[in-house]
Amino acid sequence: MAVYTDIRDDQLRDYLQLYDLGGLHSLKGIAEGVENSNFMLATDAGQFILTLYEKRVNPADLPFFLGLMDYLAARGINCPRPVAMRSGEMLGTLAHKPAAIVTWLDGVSVRRPTAGHCRQVGEVLAKMHLAAADFPVHRTNALTLENWRPLAMRSAERAHEVEPGLAQLIATELDFLEANWPATLPRGVIHADLFRDNVFFLKDKLSGVIDFYFACNDIIAYDLSICLNAWCFEHNWEFNVTKARALLQGYSAIRPLGAAEYAALPVLARGSAMRFLLTRLYDWLNVPPGALVVPHDPREYLAKLRFHQGIREASAYGLDYHPPEAA
Amino acid sequence: MAVYTDIRDDQLRDYLQLYDLGGLHSLKGIAEGVENSNFMLATDAGQFILTLYEKRVNPADLPFFLGLMDYLAARGINCPRPVAMRSGEMLGTLAHKPAAIVTWLDGVSVRRPTAGHCRQVGEVLAKMHLAAADFPVHRTNALTLENWRPLAMRSAERAHEVEPGLAQLIATELDFLEANWPATLPRGVIHADLFRDNVFFLKDKLSGVIDFYFACNDIIAYDLSICLNAWCFEHNWEFNVTKARALLQGYSAIRPLGAAEYAALPVLARGSAMRFLLTRLYDWLNVPPGALVVPHDPREYLAKLRFHQGIREASAYGLDYHPPEAA
Repeated sequence: MAVYTDIRDDQLRDYLQLYDLGGLHSLKGIAEGVENSNFMLATDAGQFILTLYEKRVNPADLPFFLGLMDYLAARGINCPRPVAMRSGEMLGTLAHKPAAIVTWLDGVSVRRPTAGHCRQVGEVLAKMHLAAADFPVHRTNALTLENWRPLAMRSAERAHEVEPGLAQLIATELDFLEANWPATLPRGVIHADLFRDNVFFLKDKLSGVIDFYFACNDIIAYDLSICLNAWCFEHNWEFNVTKARALLQGYSAIRPLGAAEYAALPVLARGSAMRFLLTRLYDWLNVPPGALVVPHDPREYLAKLRFHQGIREASAYGLDYHPPEAA
Repeated sequence: MAVYTDIRDDQLRDYLQLYDLGGLHSLKGIAEGVENSNFMLATDAGQFILTLYEKRVNPADLPFFLGLMDYLAARGINCPRPVAMRSGEMLGTLAHKPAAIVTWLDGVSVRRPTAGHCRQVGEVLAKMHLAAADFPVHRTNALTLENWRPLAMRSAERAHEVEPGLAQLIATELDFLEANWPATLPRGVIHADLFRDNVFFLKDKLSGVIDFYFACNDIIAYDLSICLNAWCFEHNWEFNVTKARALLQGYSAIRPLGAAEYAALPVLARGSAMRFLLTRLYDWLNVPPGALVVPHDPREYLAKLRFHQGIREASAYGLDYHPPEAA
C-alpha cells in the first residue's frame, strides 16, 4: 500500500487546469502499488487514477509505459488509458513528481482464481502480445537473464537465512539457465508482471489489465511462463495442471504457440521462477526499517522453481499441443 | 494511511449479499485514517465507503458512532450515512472484523484554510451540535480532563526528549486546568476531532464532515475550542485572529454562545491544546517499529498551548461578542 507523496489541494487545482476534466469532486489516496503513489480522482468528467511516479521508476521509461497503455487501449485492450492534457502531453509534473492521469477501470482482482479465470488471463495476454506487435518504442528488460547473476550475488551471503544451501542452488540453476536459455524465440512487448493483483474481473469475466510498469521487450513466451507461475499454483504452492491447461488453451486460441516456443516453456518457467525468486529474496533480506510493505516469502518461488526443474517436457503443463499449420 | 486487513473477493461477495446494493464494480483500499481500514466500494447502487473496524476501536462504541452518523444525516448534516442491510442492521462482520458501509461524500480537504473556510467550519459545527441535541445514546469522552494526567504520566520520563522541562510544564498546566475547568457549561454530543482532514469542500463550499470515531458527550464549547486550535493557526504555528473571528462568527450565527461559554473559551482552548499535545507526545515517543504513519510533531500543540496561556480574555479570539438575549 502506498501513498508516498501528499498532494495539496491548491497544487491539484492548478494541475487540473492543464486538463479538460472540469471541476474536482474528490481525491483519495489508494493503498495499492509499491512503486508509485496512486489516487482515485473524480471530476465532472468521471473517475480516474492519478499517479505520481516515485523514485523507483526511471522517468526516462515513462514515455514507454504511457505510450504502451495508450497504444493497447486504442487497439481494444481494456487497460488504463492516459488522459492527454490540453497540450496533448500525457506526462506532467505534480508535487514535484512526474504525474499522469489514466482512465479508471472497474473490476476486482481474484485471490483464488479458477480455471475459467486462468483461461481468460491466457486470452488477454495473447491479445496484448498481438496488439503490441508494432509498438514502436523499445524498453530493455532490466530483470532478464543477464541481470539475474548480479542480482543473485547481492543476496548470496545471506541466502542461507531463507534456506540452507540456497546460494549454491541458485548458482547451479543460473549455470543451467545461461546454458539453455532460448536465443531465437519470437520477441516483442511483454507485460512481465501479470500477477493476480493486476487483472480485474467483473462477475468472473475479465474486465481489465493494469500496472504496465514492468513492461518491456523480451521473449514473448516468457510472459506466458510468468503467468504459469503466477496463476497456476495453489496456496500450498502445488501446481494445478487444470489451471495451466486452461491458461495455455486460452492463450493458444488467440496466438498459437510455435513449436519452439511450446518446447521452451519448461526452461522459460524456470527462468521466470528464478526472476521472482531473486527479487523476493533480495527484498526479504533487505526490508528497510519502517517498511510499508510486508515482503513476499521467497520460498514460494523456490518451490515453483523446483517444480519446473522436475519437468522434462512441456506436455506436463497439460496442453494438448498441435503446432500451428503455418509457421 | 491504512489498510490493515485484506478482503478476499469471495468474502466481499458474500458480504454484499446482505445488502441491497446490486453487483460489485470495484473495491480499493484507501490510504487514509489510522484507526480503521477503509475501502472505496462501487456497486450498481453507486459509490460507498466500506470500513473494517480494527482493534483500536472498541466494538461497544460502534452503535454510538453509526447511530450518530445516521441521526445527523437524517437531520440534514452532510456526513457519511450508514447503509442498512436487508435485516435493518448497520453493523456487520467481514474478514472477521466489525464492518459497515456508509455513503460516499464528494469533496477534498483543504491544507491552508482561508477565513471563509473557517466560517463554514464554525457553521457546520454549530449545526451538528444542534442536530445532535436529542441523540439518545451516550458515550463518555475517553480523552477529557480526568484522563489527561494519567496519559501525561506515561510520557513524563521521556518528555524532555521533545523539550527540556516539558514534563514539568505539563504538570503545572494540568494543575491549572484541574483547578479551573468549567463545571457547569452546556454539555452534548461533540465531534471532538474536527481537523482539516475531516472536513470536505467543493469549490470552497463546505460539502461534508467525516470521521465521527472520537465523537462523545462533553462540554459543547470544548468542541469549538478544538476547532480554534485545528483551523486558526498558520503553518508556522502562529495564531490567525481573522480566521478565529470567522470561525466564532460562523458558529455564533447558528448557535449563539452563552456568556459563560464565551468566557470559558481560553481555558477550553488550553484544555484542547493539552489533549492533543498529550496524545501526540505519547505517539511521538512510542512509534512502533515498522509504523505506517509518521507521528505529528507534539511541539505544534505545545506552541498552541503557550499561545492560549497568554490569553487573558476571550476577546483575544477576535469575536465582537454580544450575549444572546434569552439565556
